[in-house]
Amino acid sequence: MPAMNLGMSDRLRPIHAALVEMIRDEIAPLDDEFLAEVDKGNRWRFTPRQREILEGLKSRARERGLWNLFLTDHPEGAGLSTVEYAWLAEEMGKSHLAPEVFNCNAPDSGNMEVLARYGSPAQQARWLRPLLDGKIRSAYLMTEPDVASSDATNISMSCTRDGDDYLLNGEKWWATGAGDPRCALHVVMVRTAGEEAPKHRRHSMLLVPADSPGIEIVRAMEVYGHDDAPHGHMHLRFTDVRVPAENLLLGEGRGFEIAQGRLGPGRIHHCMRAIGMAEKALDMLCRRALAREAFGRKLAQLGENHDIIARARIRIEQARLLCLKAAWMMDRGDARAAAPWISMIKVEAPRIALEVTDQAVQMFGAQGLSQDTPLARQWTALRTLRLADGPDAVHRRQVARAELKRHAQEPL
Amino acid sequence: MPAMNLGMSDRLRPIHAALVEMIRDEIAPLDDEFLAEVDKGNRWRFTPRQREILEGLKSRARERGLWNLFLTDHPEGAGLSTVEYAWLAEEMGKSHLAPEVFNCNAPDSGNMEVLARYGSPAQQARWLRPLLDGKIRSAYLMTEPDVASSDATNISMSCTRDGDDYLLNGEKWWATGAGDPRCALHVVMVRTAGEEAPKHRRHSMLLVPADSPGIEIVRAMEVYGHDDAPHGHMHLRFTDVRVPAENLLLGEGRGFEIAQGRLGPGRIHHCMRAIGMAEKALDMLCRRALAREAFGRKLAQLGENHDIIARARIRIEQARLLCLKAAWMMDRGDARAAAPWISMIKVEAPRIALEVTDQAVQMFGAQGLSQDTPLARQWTALRTLRLADGPDAVHRRQVARAELKRHAQEPL
Amino acid sequence: MPAMNLGMSDRLRPIHAALVEMIRDEIAPLDDEFLAEVDKGNRWRFTPRQREILEGLKSRARERGLWNLFLTDHPEGAGLSTVEYAWLAEEMGKSHLAPEVFNCNAPDSGNMEVLARYGSPAQQARWLRPLLDGKIRSAYLMTEPDVASSDATNISMSCTRDGDDYLLNGEKWWATGAGDPRCALHVVMVRTAGEEAPKHRRHSMLLVPADSPGIEIVRAMEVYGHDDAPHGHMHLRFTDVRVPAENLLLGEGRGFEIAQGRLGPGRIHHCMRAIGMAEKALDMLCRRALAREAFGRKLAQLGENHDIIARARIRIEQARLLCLKAAWMMDRGDARAAAPWISMIKVEAPRIALEVTDQAVQMFGAQGLSQDTPLARQWTALRTLRLADGPDAVHRRQVARAELKRHAQEPL
Amino acid sequence: MPAMNLGMSDRLRPIHAALVEMIRDEIAPLDDEFLAEVDKGNRWRFTPRQREILEGLKSRARERGLWNLFLTDHPEGAGLSTVEYAWLAEEMGKSHLAPEVFNCNAPDSGNMEVLARYGSPAQQARWLRPLLDGKIRSAYLMTEPDVASSDATNISMSCTRDGDDYLLNGEKWWATGAGDPRCALHVVMVRTAGEEAPKHRRHSMLLVPADSPGIEIVRAMEVYGHDDAPHGHMHLRFTDVRVPAENLLLGEGRGFEIAQGRLGPGRIHHCMRAIGMAEKALDMLCRRALAREAFGRKLAQLGENHDIIARARIRIEQARLLCLKAAWMMDRGDARAAAPWISMIKVEAPRIALEVTDQAVQMFGAQGLSQDTPLARQWTALRTLRLADGPDAVHRRQVARAELKRHAQEPL
Repeated sequence: MPAMNLGMSDRLRPIHAALVEMIRDEIAPLDDEFLAEVDKGNRWRFTPRQREILEGLKSRARERGLWNLFLTDHPEGAGLSTVEYAWLAEEMGKSHLAPEVFNCNAPDSGNMEVLARYGSPAQQARWLRPLLDGKIRSAYLMTEPDVASSDATNISMSCTRDGDDYLLNGEKWWATGAGDPRCALHVVMVRTAGEEAPKHRRHSMLLVPADSPGIEIVRAMEVYGHDDAPHGHMHLRFTDVRVPAENLLLGEGRGFEIAQGRLGPGRIHHCMRAIGMAEKALDMLCRRALAREAFGRKLAQLGENHDIIARARIRIEQARLLCLKAAWMMDRGDARAAAPWISMIKVEAPRIALEVTDQAVQMFGAQGLSQDTPLARQWTALRTLRLADGPDAVHRRQVARAELKRHAQEPL
Repeated sequence: MPAMNLGMSDRLRPIHAALVEMIRDEIAPLDDEFLAEVDKGNRWRFTPRQREILEGLKSRARERGLWNLFLTDHPEGAGLSTVEYAWLAEEMGKSHLAPEVFNCNAPDSGNMEVLARYGSPAQQARWLRPLLDGKIRSAYLMTEPDVASSDATNISMSCTRDGDDYLLNGEKWWATGAGDPRCALHVVMVRTAGEEAPKHRRHSMLLVPADSPGIEIVRAMEVYGHDDAPHGHMHLRFTDVRVPAENLLLGEGRGFEIAQGRLGPGRIHHCMRAIGMAEKALDMLCRRALAREAFGRKLAQLGENHDIIARARIRIEQARLLCLKAAWMMDRGDARAAAPWISMIKVEAPRIALEVTDQAVQMFGAQGLSQDTPLARQWTALRTLRLADGPDAVHRRQVARAELKRHAQEPL
Repeated sequence: MPAMNLGMSDRLRPIHAALVEMIRDEIAPLDDEFLAEVDKGNRWRFTPRQREILEGLKSRARERGLWNLFLTDHPEGAGLSTVEYAWLAEEMGKSHLAPEVFNCNAPDSGNMEVLARYGSPAQQARWLRPLLDGKIRSAYLMTEPDVASSDATNISMSCTRDGDDYLLNGEKWWATGAGDPRCALHVVMVRTAGEEAPKHRRHSMLLVPADSPGIEIVRAMEVYGHDDAPHGHMHLRFTDVRVPAENLLLGEGRGFEIAQGRLGPGRIHHCMRAIGMAEKALDMLCRRALAREAFGRKLAQLGENHDIIARARIRIEQARLLCLKAAWMMDRGDARAAAPWISMIKVEAPRIALEVTDQAVQMFGAQGLSQDTPLARQWTALRTLRLADGPDAVHRRQVARAELKRHAQEPL
Repeated sequence: MPAMNLGMSDRLRPIHAALVEMIRDEIAPLDDEFLAEVDKGNRWRFTPRQREILEGLKSRARERGLWNLFLTDHPEGAGLSTVEYAWLAEEMGKSHLAPEVFNCNAPDSGNMEVLARYGSPAQQARWLRPLLDGKIRSAYLMTEPDVASSDATNISMSCTRDGDDYLLNGEKWWATGAGDPRCALHVVMVRTAGEEAPKHRRHSMLLVPADSPGIEIVRAMEVYGHDDAPHGHMHLRFTDVRVPAENLLLGEGRGFEIAQGRLGPGRIHHCMRAIGMAEKALDMLCRRALAREAFGRKLAQLGENHDIIARARIRIEQARLLCLKAAWMMDRGDARAAAPWISMIKVEAPRIALEVTDQAVQMFGAQGLSQDTPLARQWTALRTLRLADGPDAVHRRQVARAELKRHAQEPL
């Protein structure tokens, strides 16, 4: 059995150092300026300054080989294991811009993995290549407004064959990144079979050009008041959208299979970025506690602040180790064995990061609620993680069923 | 000793019924439309439709005698005790518009109480009368960006005598309502004495016309992305703002005395509105749990949802009773005895309301994060309550000191 | 609608004062001595000194009219409402001996209520009279080792008619007080009908003399190492125990009806005693925090101790108010309406009392674990309350179902 | 930097398998019988059957080389690292007898480490040899009844030089194992210098024969009603106890140095055993949930039981990884760097184990409170861990100070 090495490998160490340095010295200092920029005429465009910041950083990252780091087992990646990449994802979580600068941002990273694993050569040439080069962006369309998508068998966007094409009708929402003017591709889960097919063979995954006629952006969904323009979480309506049949991924009825494969690494990436956010929040909390005074003492010396800090440190260390263990399970290649581990971190990492962020808000006082610190924005991003890719309750159910199975005499 | 009657009195019952009915039938149905309206040219103006909605509802409320209900012991009020008003405040918490419709909204209600109790006849004629009539709005300027305002002795806006006037210099922020074009009055805490004066006699309270030359609106503070335009939480800069000396309330050095008197009832109102928000969230959560299905069962039947609902109900009932008890203590007239009770609810009510609201968000799934339900907005409003009028930690400290005093042989 | 007066009535106040005084001056000082006494030869006997302590205190209590205070609506009681008695029960919770001294201890109080309400004159003469006089003790036999008694329809002790008698066979455990040599009566839930009868009409309640042939004490159940000798929680085996048919209460198939009526007040009493235990623990915690020093400061000034104290105070006040509200609902006479309130306190009061007791243990350090303070014993007594008369989960389920019913279109 | 391998090494795997097998097949099945045995005449003796069980198992363990496994860096140990031993300690936590069977039980293991590291050859010959052979047992006397021992500088047992001897006077309590008739050695922390010496140089560590004249066993301390006879937690009084000066360890004033060195590994062992107890409790909980029915369904399918199981699994995995990381830090040899990690697990491991054990008690219903399962006893053992070797609050303080130091400009 391979050693359970959860630390940084020798191979990783210089990459990690270069990434930390670039985030600290070049990327993070531009986060605020980038976020404060808004195109007054159209929130769903980038300003010239935003483009300049982003493309400049991307060029420098790519020059240094800090590019597509998330891709394991692929010549375009950096040859890292999931454990190794997890250490990098944590650092990227500390800056708004960092994930995209390193071409490691969701949902593009997951879409690239899908295309790399399941795409035909033609599909890869048309979509994967420009994604790997950071030339286009993409969205992943799963959730629908009218069904409880936590049970993904409910997904119902209609997809019918019409000659050499498919015709799509229905609505999708929470299409993250679909507001981005560079978004060229939607990876779409659709329903292709009726009740006659087995429950997990009724859905398919299609590649849909974002500019296909019949796709209408209904509106931008807000998250606690943030619309994340111009990136966005869009509500889309599909009316007789026509897609060539060759845009199908893998085959009809294989949507679940692809979705399952796609979600595992993505959840680990999200969770490790959440750990990074938790670290950032704790760092800010401690600095604030040492910088302010009330009742004649530093905040750090007052009341339960020692206990708050210690509890945060204890929970962060545990969550990081759990994420790394899940990544290690993923690296071993047995998806079924890794599944409960991924469910465990999916529940735990966002929770601890939310808690520490909330404690930091409280330490900052009213300023913590505002646009003056990244805390409030970070909190809302983390809050979505308790729902995205499956709500907590569904993941806890998975963990419990795996646990009970060890003891059960009969099927649960 | 008077009976500790925490229920509704016979006198209250018809008023309560009328208020519930008006909120349900006339006010709440307009909340969404009002909030969705934005003056495209200037977020800090009301649109004609907003004015129409608000003034129409205010007229009807006043006609029915549902007006200035918060005022205890005052001819303009409805003759209610704090306990009685608490029951009404809970209902008002369920609608965005309701508090203002009944002329019971913060910070105006607190400012009216201050003017009613401490204002000179001239001050009352100029400011209290139009506030009681709902003709103008006001702000309360306490918190400052550069000091830990949780320890209010830190407050430092400069206020120096210059002939018959005072000259004010400094910055205030989180001036709630100061963005409202109808805001005509700032009630301002300033520093009028140096280290030579006792710690709690160094500050004074001044009435400052909102259109005084030298007051600049620096920007609107956001709360998790919401700017609450056109009401707003403004950051203001005062540069040589000149105010006639007769605008002083009560006397120099009496700022703390006024602030203490002001905050008690206001905290109870906030907390009872928070209970109303919690009830609204639980109501929405239950309806959703009965309306949606996953894994072949109603959400209400799945996992820990029964336990979530029961825990919410248990905590809400307790928090309501604690608020009512605090109100009853307030009605008995002994501010010192009531103080720890008010600190207790100030800690507890926002927390339970936040928790239930968060559970409701989770039950709604991604929709709960968005503008489609009042939950996310309600959550951010409640989150500010854990900081406004004193952060949790300061109130817990007060409660603990009161507790320890019973046992201590010497001063703590 | 009657006023919701949750405070002490004028009638109650002198009784409360007398009871507090007697507990403080006469009863509590003897708790430790009583508990430390053990009959070396037989743990299931009282020593002469134990009898002397107990009977002496009982006489003095009865002389003062502090006797059978729990009995509402009965000439032998003190004419108190449930709310009024709740205030007294809280005080009794602070002393080990107090409940029995005032003839208000469980399970006798519940059994007396059952006999008073449902007993025939003959049954009352034989059992109720000596119980009211404190001459005998009794047990309540419900739970059985082989079934999940949280669902009471599972109860299965066999009871068959044999001429003028019933014959009982089976096992009962957790028969609290059945070890007491003075225990003369078992009130026993038995199964008298088969599947043909409706689910809640299959059980009956029987009065069984404790010295009936065929009853064997298998062993004493321990609670975290305490056997509570000589009172005890006994495991009993019934082998062909013969009981005259006139010992049946109310009628065959009416066991559930009686059990429901019996449990309501008993749960309130338990919960109010739990509040008293919480107050006692917080009192001890504060004294300790002021008496000990570490790292150069009083424990009270260290770390989160202020927050611990404040949280305890906040939770205790809320739990007390909730208990009083439940008692008030009970006094209004609508058992169905009161039921969810009783479930709410049944969940909440033991939890808060356990938490505060545990915090007090921690403040005392290792001593808190030991026989040197009442804390560890109190904790184990409270821990049983989370299971006795229904585990938390069952009560939360009841609360949730009541909540959902308000919204449901169809039966749950 | 060495790889952070937290899994089992190839070297460990067969040892682990043998140990698991011996516990499962030979040791655990005898736990109940051993615990139920009591010498009726004298609780502080072993019965012949107890001796037979214990010595038989010890012989077989030693034959298999499963002996003194805890000793790292010592020829008598098994050559394991702390990480490797941690995996074994977890398994030992699942059986009452296991730690002693493998000669790995506290406080002997800690005392052996002290003697191995700091003992003179003569001291080792007299005490270490028989301890390594399992011929004698020992106690560690630190805590005192009259001072807050959480701040160990308070320790005050008097120790004065008298010719070639030391004279000891004072009291110690919570001397775990001092009731054991085989206990031959007390390792005792005493005060040898006054205020003139630096705070951490005032204490010394002495080896005191347990049968020294002047040592009186005052009583056995109980832990929630358990006296753990004949092992015991004893309260001892020292009156003019005379000890030869050569029994001093390391030198006068070096008591703190020894205590610090002693506690690190011991805390890890305790915590890993706690993880084992948590696993055992979760295992029992799951089996019970699958075996019982209520309301027509298996308990496992009811209410929040899935969530309880999932939360337990998530917390256990995290706590185990944190313990292993702390063990890995310890193996790296930098005690200062390892210290906050040991504080972290010291806080976390007992808490999670207590929580899961308590959930298991609740799942078992009243039986869980009793002597019928190991749960109640296990809970009380775990509860002491939140106080032994430093209460939670002290450890959180250490963690927080380490965290703040990274950011502080000046000493904290």
